[in-house]
Amino acid sequence: MSVPAKTSVEHLRVDADRLLARLDALAEIGAIEGNGVCRLALSDEDRLARDQVVAWMRDLGLDVSIDRIGNVLGLRPGREDLPPVTVGSHIDTVATGGRFDGSLGVLAGLEVVAALNDAGMATRKPIAVGFFTNEEGARFAPDMMGSGVHQGAMDLGHMLATTGIDGATVGQELERIGYAGDAPVGSFRADSYIELHVEQGPLLEHEGYDIGSVTGVQGISWQEFRISGTSNHAGTTPMHLRQDAGYLAAAITTEARRLALEMGEGQVATVGVTRLIPNLVNVIPQQALLTVDLRNMEEQRLQQAEQRLSEFIEQMAEAEGVTVDQRSLARFQPVNFDPEMVALVENTANQMGLKVRRLPSGAGHDAQMFAPNCPTAMIFVPSRGGISHNVAEYTAPQQIEAGANVLLRAVLQRAG
Amino acid sequence: MSVPAKTSVEHLRVDADRLLARLDALAEIGAIEGNGVCRLALSDEDRLARDQVVAWMRDLGLDVSIDRIGNVLGLRPGREDLPPVTVGSHIDTVATGGRFDGSLGVLAGLEVVAALNDAGMATRKPIAVGFFTNEEGARFAPDMMGSGVHQGAMDLGHMLATTGIDGATVGQELERIGYAGDAPVGSFRADSYIELHVEQGPLLEHEGYDIGSVTGVQGISWQEFRISGTSNHAGTTPMHLRQDAGYLAAAITTEARRLALEMGEGQVATVGVTRLIPNLVNVIPQQALLTVDLRNMEEQRLQQAEQRLSEFIEQMAEAEGVTVDQRSLARFQPVNFDPEMVALVENTANQMGLKVRRLPSGAGHDAQMFAPNCPTAMIFVPSRGGISHNVAEYTAPQQIEAGANVLLRAVLQRAG
Repeated sequence: MSVPAKTSVEHLRVDADRLLARLDALAEIGAIEGNGVCRLALSDEDRLARDQVVAWMRDLGLDVSIDRIGNVLGLRPGREDLPPVTVGSHIDTVATGGRFDGSLGVLAGLEVVAALNDAGMATRKPIAVGFFTNEEGARFAPDMMGSGVHQGAMDLGHMLATTGIDGATVGQELERIGYAGDAPVGSFRADSYIELHVEQGPLLEHEGYDIGSVTGVQGISWQEFRISGTSNHAGTTPMHLRQDAGYLAAAITTEARRLALEMGEGQVATVGVTRLIPNLVNVIPQQALLTVDLRNMEEQRLQQAEQRLSEFIEQMAEAEGVTVDQRSLARFQPVNFDPEMVALVENTANQMGLKVRRLPSGAGHDAQMFAPNCPTAMIFVPSRGGISHNVAEYTAPQQIEAGANVLLRAVLQRAG
Repeated sequence: MSVPAKTSVEHLRVDADRLLARLDALAEIGAIEGNGVCRLALSDEDRLARDQVVAWMRDLGLDVSIDRIGNVLGLRPGREDLPPVTVGSHIDTVATGGRFDGSLGVLAGLEVVAALNDAGMATRKPIAVGFFTNEEGARFAPDMMGSGVHQGAMDLGHMLATTGIDGATVGQELERIGYAGDAPVGSFRADSYIELHVEQGPLLEHEGYDIGSVTGVQGISWQEFRISGTSNHAGTTPMHLRQDAGYLAAAITTEARRLALEMGEGQVATVGVTRLIPNLVNVIPQQALLTVDLRNMEEQRLQQAEQRLSEFIEQMAEAEGVTVDQRSLARFQPVNFDPEMVALVENTANQMGLKVRRLPSGAGHDAQMFAPNCPTAMIFVPSRGGISHNVAEYTAPQQIEAGANVLLRAVLQRAG
């Protein structure tokens, strides 16, 4: 049998070795013990990583532009001058990050371009591959800053003035590392946005799926509760005369679990923080501080969870004779991705014989900034043990290859 | 009507003003802001307080002896050379102590002697009034050290060698403050021991009682649990795939409450300590440390509570997929006071028209060291709001007077 000189669309595949080699090379910049990466946004390591990715973009013939918040986009022209099908993610990491979170989406985007170049294949629409500044928010808050400014959800001036954990501002650091570009922000129009990312959760692995077609990003409600009771002697105070702030904190924690289980799939609830005062073995806690993290794909159900938890706390506080001060630490509505884009990813994976399921993203991503403005999709690949934001983060080579091939095929579907 | 020159036993009363004046004078030694006292065992303040009480003992004609652990006893001879009816408590305090805890029992004892002296009344048995070294254990562990050595439950040499929180030893400090006496310890035989003390709990006030006749001291079980789960993303980890150490800690806390309520009066359970790692809003806790304080007057029921809690924890740990390391921090069996002595206090209070109830002591006292060796009783007076080990500790003058009068009458009943 003869192999065609120019591969047909159906047979087009990424070069997994080339993609993995780029992932390895990028992971060396800011490498830390245990196979991890520390590449905080706009740090020296971020600069070196940016320089490397920009060099690869230019090698692939992309037209590189840098905007005023430091986002970098490399454009591959299409046969028609249309808004580009945009592929991207981020290359900054948390302080103890893994090598796949963010980088995979960017380098798989480059691999899409490389595969098309190799095949000598042109597309009707242009393709843009980019990385967005400070997605993690580990050095500068808020997170998803670059994509937020890019899509008009955040104000450029305000973000440039943001001070990081080390006292430097975003604007200063962009200048320092040479990534204060001149491309305007907010004027970019994408045909669509497709982001390949590691799941950062255990679901795909646990259920034996190769690919997740992301339906959207969960809404997030972070609340802090400060409970004030009465400190008293653990031996001499009868149970019915206690005003135990620690007990109320525990009751809220177990109720959060119960509520999430009762509401069923799609609702998660986590008490990550609990602090007691005075925190002594024989003293009934006078004060307790705890946080509740609630997430749901449906705004109405998220509100329902908040409401039911509040009612529980109110009743329990009255019964125990303690006071509870509640404050919101963060609140984001759910983001739903375009149904056609979700189906595109799902169908593409199915056609490739991959096991795919739909699932929401529990974590925030650059894609959610694009979702209100253009058809948006995310492709998830499994994270071993669900481990994320940790040097032990891992996705197997064949899983990466599968994800990149789904990305390639989905981009081609959109780009024509 | 003529007042008899020598009051009959039935009409004998303490001089409340004199008792309160001595309480005020003693509270000035080591006084701290908020009407409280800091008089750590064997400190300079403790020395000054000891000197003051010894001076009062000598003014009252008592024969003062100091033993090798620094306990001080003042003896009022009886008509017969019998073991003395012994009244005592302690004058050391915690760092932020109140003015009644301990001092009340000692100074009420002096007031008993003063009232008998005023009435020119002799008793068949001698009466001893004393204070015992380091009852609080706030500077040197263990607590109840002086009475423990006195009653042979603790070893003198070992206790003298004990190093305190500031590096000094008990032996050194006794020498320094001049209270390393020469009276032997362990040879003292008491006819009986009666201790007046503030309740340090809310029960008497809450239920409107004047006097508590203490049935004994609760057994104490302190356990520490170290729970190891898996740290994971709060958004991406489905509820059924969590190994949440913080959830288990909360479940143990609510179960401890439920168990105590189910077991009913006499069982208390407190989770005073909870610490989570990493203690971040969006991370499922990997580790949790918590303590459980269980107390009961009955050893068998205390064991039952321990057993039931352990079974619960084992089941829950398995269901959650976490491991739990359990260790005992302290374990004391309950001490039961002599039923006749409990009845003596109760009847005496009743005869005086005071509202009295039996109750166990949730806190430790010198009396529990005497209980195995001689008939022992404790008289409780109410603590406002149940507050103890706090500068806000308070008992009203008329409550103190009532307690001292019950002490006086009970001592006379025993001393004949």
